[in-house]
Amino acid sequence: MGDTGGMSPVLALVTRPALSRPATGHAASHDDGVELVDPAAAHLLVTDLGVQRGDGIFETIGVSNGSPLSLDEHLARFAHSAALLDLPDPDLEVWRRAILTAIGAHESAQELSAKIVLTRGVPGRGEASGWVWVEPAGDFTAARTDGIRVVTLDRGYRHDAAEPAPWLLLGAKTLSYAVNQAALREAERRGADDVIFVSSDGYVLEGPTSTVIVRHGQSVSTTPTTAGILAGTTQARAFDFFSSRGFACEFALMPLERLRQADAAWLVSSVRQAAPVRALDGAPLAVDTALTADLVAALLTPPQR
Amino acid sequence: MGDTGGMSPVLALVTRPALSRPATGHAASHDDGVELVDPAAAHLLVTDLGVQRGDGIFETIGVSNGSPLSLDEHLARFAHSAALLDLPDPDLEVWRRAILTAIGAHESAQELSAKIVLTRGVPGRGEASGWVWVEPAGDFTAARTDGIRVVTLDRGYRHDAAEPAPWLLLGAKTLSYAVNQAALREAERRGADDVIFVSSDGYVLEGPTSTVIVRHGQSVSTTPTTAGILAGTTQARAFDFFSSRGFACEFALMPLERLRQADAAWLVSSVRQAAPVRALDGAPLAVDTALTADLVAALLTPPQR
Repeated sequence: MGDTGGMSPVLALVTRPALSRPATGHAASHDDGVELVDPAAAHLLVTDLGVQRGDGIFETIGVSNGSPLSLDEHLARFAHSAALLDLPDPDLEVWRRAILTAIGAHESAQELSAKIVLTRGVPGRGEASGWVWVEPAGDFTAARTDGIRVVTLDRGYRHDAAEPAPWLLLGAKTLSYAVNQAALREAERRGADDVIFVSSDGYVLEGPTSTVIVRHGQSVSTTPTTAGILAGTTQARAFDFFSSRGFACEFALMPLERLRQADAAWLVSSVRQAAPVRALDGAPLAVDTALTADLVAALLTPPQR
Repeated sequence: MGDTGGMSPVLALVTRPALSRPATGHAASHDDGVELVDPAAAHLLVTDLGVQRGDGIFETIGVSNGSPLSLDEHLARFAHSAALLDLPDPDLEVWRRAILTAIGAHESAQELSAKIVLTRGVPGRGEASGWVWVEPAGDFTAARTDGIRVVTLDRGYRHDAAEPAPWLLLGAKTLSYAVNQAALREAERRGADDVIFVSSDGYVLEGPTSTVIVRHGQSVSTTPTTAGILAGTTQARAFDFFSSRGFACEFALMPLERLRQADAAWLVSSVRQAAPVRALDGAPLAVDTALTADLVAALLTPPQR
């Protein structure tokens, strides 16, 4: 989690995280299923399967001037991840309320992040654990403006591994991110800022915490979710932007060699929004500063209701 | 974690988990680096990277009549996992003391399990989190005697994925076990009790929480760690047993078809010890009850010092 910029984070426990589940003890006096608690205090048992087994799911939601971005899409993906892990079905209205409550309780700031987590809870209790954590977004000015240096790393799986082997949980946003973290450390060792994972058979996948968007001429493309990657919530909004600028947008499986021939590429994600790739495995890639600035501005604009 | 059989678990926080690290606040009055705390209380912040990212490591150690089994081997593997994840180097003497303290504080029982966990801790604090959890082992009589039904599931990685891609953390015992848990749920859906993972190119790997030992005639074999599996602490002691009974013991990469032709197979692990495979993907496999009973007894016998 980012630098808090001197502001206190906000923690809301979600005391009624799942549909058709009994309320927890916490919830008895809070029938909206949400309880603001001290973020500096311990709230988790060491036996929670979230930590014992990385057995849970999360979403990180960007918040622009108090408005959560792509909230419906994040909630839908959260429910999808829960289904892939056979977790209890999250009560999305409670989660929505928890997110808005936590954002409302935070000091106002231009950009915040709201992270929501659902774990399988403590064995034998039959209850999931859930919470919302809101804090100031980091300062991504340099990444958004100057761009980032990216290395490609083998993800170990073939591009078609997901469909026949759902237990690999490809496409679920789980708490089991040790490999993603290790990949980011490997990037740092190589003097880079971020990673693009490639399938073992040579196709572009995604970043450890981002979606890849690639431009060739007047076309932009991203990897389809059938390749075992997460559906990109920010990517969807980025495609809206590129469409509005006259680019053809497509989902297409892309060999790594085609990425190397790109005119431009971005890693898009919920809080950093869009970071242009300025070097790929050490080879420079052009950064369109004006286009990227417009893209970031569009991504940070909450939709009109 | 298993049924506690009415006994209270014991939780010891390891307040000086890493070498050359400042003591935490907790440790100020406990300069042995170990603090027994209420196991029913919350001790973890939701921001701990152990839960945020499954970013940590663990070992589960069998305890027989008060003696931890293969303790040196577990501690060595713990340190190896820490190195693979670039975690601070655990102070193994503190961990050893913590394990013995926690076991000593537990009501005596024939079989306990001691789980040790080291996480990257809370971002910005520069301190790892560590603890030991001791509880009664489950009752594994049926699994040890009658055997278990096992299904084979694709692990998604080739048998040779580990060496060129250390960021995949193959061979590290991390908290990111969501896939292992999903595989066990898939086994249950298929009417089975456990899983043997197979590489995407068809070689036998390991179980989600166990090592595979296969007998063909007078030879027993297991998969080498070069295939991206954990070094088996229990497997090492099982090989001692099989050697003493005149079996030839070898590490050999085994195609799945060769497993299907086995005369017998076991999943060995630190707490269940050895469970004979009585069915593999629905096909029956012979269980040698007498040999297995001797194997379990040998595994539960603490080494003489």
